[in-house]
Parts: sequence; C-alpha cells; structure tokens
Amino acid sequence: MTRRPVVAVLEGERPVRGLERVAELADVRVAQAPTLDRALDGADVLYLWDYFSGALPAAWHAAGSLRWLHVAAAGVDKLLFPELVASDVVVTNAHGIFDQPMAEYVLGAMLYAAKGFGPLHDQQRDARWVWREGRNIAGSRALVVGTGSIGRHTARLLKAVGVHVEGAGRTAAEHDDDFGSVHASADLASVVGGFDWVVLVAPLTPATENLVSAAVIGAMKPSAVLINVGRGRLVDEAALVDSLQTGTLAGAVLDTVAVEPLPPDHPLWSLPTVLVTPHMASNADSWLDDLAVQFERNFLLWVEGRPLPGVVDKVLGYVPSRPGQGS
Amino acid sequence: MTRRPVVAVLEGERPVRGLERVAELADVRVAQAPTLDRALDGADVLYLWDYFSGALPAAWHAAGSLRWLHVAAAGVDKLLFPELVASDVVVTNAHGIFDQPMAEYVLGAMLYAAKGFGPLHDQQRDARWVWREGRNIAGSRALVVGTGSIGRHTARLLKAVGVHVEGAGRTAAEHDDDFGSVHASADLASVVGGFDWVVLVAPLTPATENLVSAAVIGAMKPSAVLINVGRGRLVDEAALVDSLQTGTLAGAVLDTVAVEPLPPDHPLWSLPTVLVTPHMASNADSWLDDLAVQFERNFLLWVEGRPLPGVVDKVLGYVPSRPGQGS
Repeated sequence: MTRRPVVAVLEGERPVRGLERVAELADVRVAQAPTLDRALDGADVLYLWDYFSGALPAAWHAAGSLRWLHVAAAGVDKLLFPELVASDVVVTNAHGIFDQPMAEYVLGAMLYAAKGFGPLHDQQRDARWVWREGRNIAGSRALVVGTGSIGRHTARLLKAVGVHVEGAGRTAAEHDDDFGSVHASADLASVVGGFDWVVLVAPLTPATENLVSAAVIGAMKPSAVLINVGRGRLVDEAALVDSLQTGTLAGAVLDTVAVEPLPPDHPLWSLPTVLVTPHMASNADSWLDDLAVQFERNFLLWVEGRPLPGVVDKVLGYVPSRPGQGS
Repeated sequence: MTRRPVVAVLEGERPVRGLERVAELADVRVAQAPTLDRALDGADVLYLWDYFSGALPAAWHAAGSLRWLHVAAAGVDKLLFPELVASDVVVTNAHGIFDQPMAEYVLGAMLYAAKGFGPLHDQQRDARWVWREGRNIAGSRALVVGTGSIGRHTARLLKAVGVHVEGAGRTAAEHDDDFGSVHASADLASVVGGFDWVVLVAPLTPATENLVSAAVIGAMKPSAVLINVGRGRLVDEAALVDSLQTGTLAGAVLDTVAVEPLPPDHPLWSLPTVLVTPHMASNADSWLDDLAVQFERNFLLWVEGRPLPGVVDKVLGYVPSRPGQGS
C-alpha cells in the first residue's frame, strides 16, 4: 500500500467506539449523515457504525474509490441498494456478534410464553394471586427459519435444554449438524403444522419477503407461538393479527415488525397474547465493544490483504453459511 | 399380606387421578378433610393428593394402623407435625416429578430478568416502543441454594446454557458432579457476593428458616436477582423488601412467599423490579398424571415390600440426596 488508507465512519447518535488502532494505520473521517459524501470522497473503507442509517444512497456519488464497506449489523436488507450491489465494493457485516444475545432472547421468549410470564406479570401489576399452570419446553418442537450463524446458534441453545429443533432454509437438507432436517422454505406451509414454535431468524430478501404468508400462518398449530427476531416483513402481518385475534394462533413474540417503531395505534399492541419488543434482541452486555473489536480486527486483515470474515453475498442478501459453522 | 390393604386418599378440590390399579389391590377410601379421620381408621396407607391440606393433625388420632404416607408434593414442611415425625410412619414425597418444570421456571425467570421482559411487557401494554438493552446469561454466575433433586436438575439446565453454577447446602463439598463447589449454607453471607443470581430451591426446615437473612441479602451484589422457588420463609422478607425498595438488590422473582396467597396490600406487589407468581413453578404439562403414575408405581413397590423411592428423612425434613443423583 503506497499511501495511508482512508476510512470513512458514519457515526449517528451513538458515539463510535474503538478506532484508536485503526487511526494509527489510516486517516479516519468520522461523519454524520449530512457530511457523509464529503467523508466518502477518496475513502477506501466505509464503516457504518450507524447501522440503521439510510444515508448511503444519497452519498454514493462520492464513493468512487470505495473498496470495502463494513456494517455493524447482521441484517443488510436496508443497505443493499442496486448501485452497491452492482459495484465491486466488498460488504461485510457483524457476523457472529449477535448469535448469543439473539439465541438467548429466543429461549427467553419461549419460556416467557410457556410459563405464562406475560399474564403473571399482569397479575403482579394488579396484586392478584391467581394460580395457573405452565408448560415445559423440553420435548416441544421448534422450527428455526434461517440457517445462518444466528439460526445455528439458536438451534444449539434450544437443543441444549431439550427442545427438538429442525430448520428451514433456501435448500432442504438432511443430517445437518445443527438442525438434523432442514426443510425448504418453499414448503413451509406443509411443514409448520408439526411445530410448537416457529422462530424466524432469516434475512429479509426478495426470496424471504412474506415467507410466513397467510397460508403458512393458517397451517400452524392453534397452540403454537411465532417468534420473530429476523425482519417484520418476513411475515404477512395482517394475517398474523387476524390469527391472533381469532385465536387460531396462540401467541407471538416479535422483536421486529414491518414498520418500526410500531405505530401506537397498531393492533399488535393491544393483543393480550403478543409481546412486541423494540428491536433489541441482539443488544446485550458488551455488544458495542464487541462490534468495535470486530471492525478493528477486520481492518487489520484488510490492510494485510487477507480474507475478511462475514462477507455478504450481495445478490443473496446475506452471509452464506455452511452446516455446522459456528459464530 | 393376609388382608387387602386399606388406602385412604385425601382428595381436596381437584379430583384424584389414577387409582384404578391401586383399587384392584386395595380398599380405597377417598375422603375430604372433614371425613379424613373416618377414612384413616384402619388404613395402612394415606395418600395426600391434596398436598396443601393441613387436615392431618386433627385426624391423626385415627391413624393408629398407618404405615406409609405419600404426599403429592416436594416440600413437606407443613406436613411434618411432631406426632408424625415421632411415629414409625414412612413418609414419601413426589421426588423427581417437579425437577423439570422448576428448573425451566428458574431459567425462564433468569431470562425474564436478563432481557427485561417485565418492563418490555409494560411497554407492550402502554403501546410504547422504547429501545432498551438486555443482558446475556451465558457467563453469569448462579448460586443454587439447595442440593436436592430439584437443585441438581436446575444446576444441570443452567450449565447447559453457559451459566456458571455453584451450590449451597448443609455441608460444604468440592468436586460435586453437578455443582463443582458446594458452599455451606452457614457461610452464605460471605459467598453470595460472588453471584449474579441466587436461586432458592431448599426445603423449609428449622435449619433453613430465615437462611437468606438481612445480612445475606445485604451481601448480594446490587445487580443481583433473587429467585425463590423453595419456600417464602427461607427469606427475611422485610429485609428483602427494604433492599428492593432502596435498590441495593436489582430484582426478585418469587414463586413462593411467607404468607400465601400474598395479601393484596403487600409491598412486594408494588415493586417494579419484582415478579411474584402464585406458587406454580412446579406445575406444568402432565404433572397431575405424573403424580398419579408415581403413586401407583410406589404402591406396587410397597405391596411387594420393596424399598420406596423418595423417602423423607423426617428429622432433616427432606429427601436426602447424593451428589450426581438424578431425578
């Protein structure tokens, strides 16, 4: 490398962490959305610390020298605009960082529903002692839709507590290390009826949008619970509300919805069998420092010209994962 | 056996299950509390299906021929009145039946607290989308107070999801199969400071009453959470309320309290960091049928004069457990 590389950072509201080591080796330009194009002019690397920002398309005209873009998030659905997809820019994501918090959130959501902590919490607020039975999750059956790093980690955690787990992904497979059987997502309607929990961890892509259609929701057991930590638009939300209202689906725990924040008058807020959480399943403990360490590590690899982990397939819209691959 | 044995059953509100096989071999007398003494007159066996009933002392005068008493519960603190303890009557409990639901409840309570499902549920009821961070339980440290069957099953479940677990019991031990280190309960105040979760699964006995004293509560980390699925009177409840009110303890999930049902004006109801649940941690899925099957199985052993599982040490006040002993 004949000159110091230039790293543009889109910061956003939360102060960016951990660029000390990067700044020793590169010129770092920390920008906010309105100044992103100036920071991008001549930059080799773009680090989207503000992972929810939609500022990049408007600044793309200045990204002519960009070679690598790292986003501090797992899902890249909002990021992959056509010019970026068509470009030679390598895109990497926060692969692995969110495996543990998201798997724990899913397990917590299952126990929340199985033990009735929602109604029990209501009783707490009303100072009411009314006995009710719980359910065990051991021996129950979970279908994890999404066979990437987060889905695999979730499967392993659920299996560790005695839940029977199968997977659903783009391609069907048998004898998968983590899932045993992987069903083709296209067959979801004929498969979901055999499960007590349907857990969505899939990325949002043209192939997965509305994957959990009215037909799929209708094929779920009336006693089943839907858990969505992937993306809201994986689900036909109107059909979901309808099934929950009529009781043909027992409940839902949703960390993501089609429109975020969920509008105050949305029917999902008022359903007693639903818990909507504010897109926080992936955020626990040291996640911000973990993201910072990950970018620094990736940057050192990039400087040395070595392969980067977590490279997004920009056409598929996610990081392809091999069976048994850990975080 | 020269005559058909007589089995008295205290039924209570919930219809007794599964006595068909027993009735083939014995005269079965199903009683309610007011008629218990008549059922006991000449009975060899008493089956306390109504495990919360306090009716036995008043009927004890008729129990002269009683040889075996089985209670469909884990805790026997309310049952062990002096005349029963002094008698030759063998007491067995529902050993093992509650291991799985109680361990799952504890894990669920930890995730409920770690992910903030309580405040998130409040936001759901108020239709509020306010981001908040969770915590991971993997890598956190739990002290399980009580080294019987339920405590051991709980330890194994928590370890399966990456929680560091140690135990506390009557006698200290090292290299325990389930707990690694078992601390002496007498040393609790000097030990609890090293844990994020203090989980009470101990029986209530003269030796464990008020075990979690003001001094023990005061020694807990301010970020720690107390989970009690044992008995309310293990804890100095006034000191607990005080610590929760002043914030020197982060939270509590309590399936049992000193006075049940918890009175509507009790301060534990109004603390935002507390979840009181109505003594239901042990009740999930097929528990009633499991209890029925267990008594039938025990009865067949008893008829054949073979050793019974789950024999309570009436002086200690619980079923002694060996390290590594399963359910």
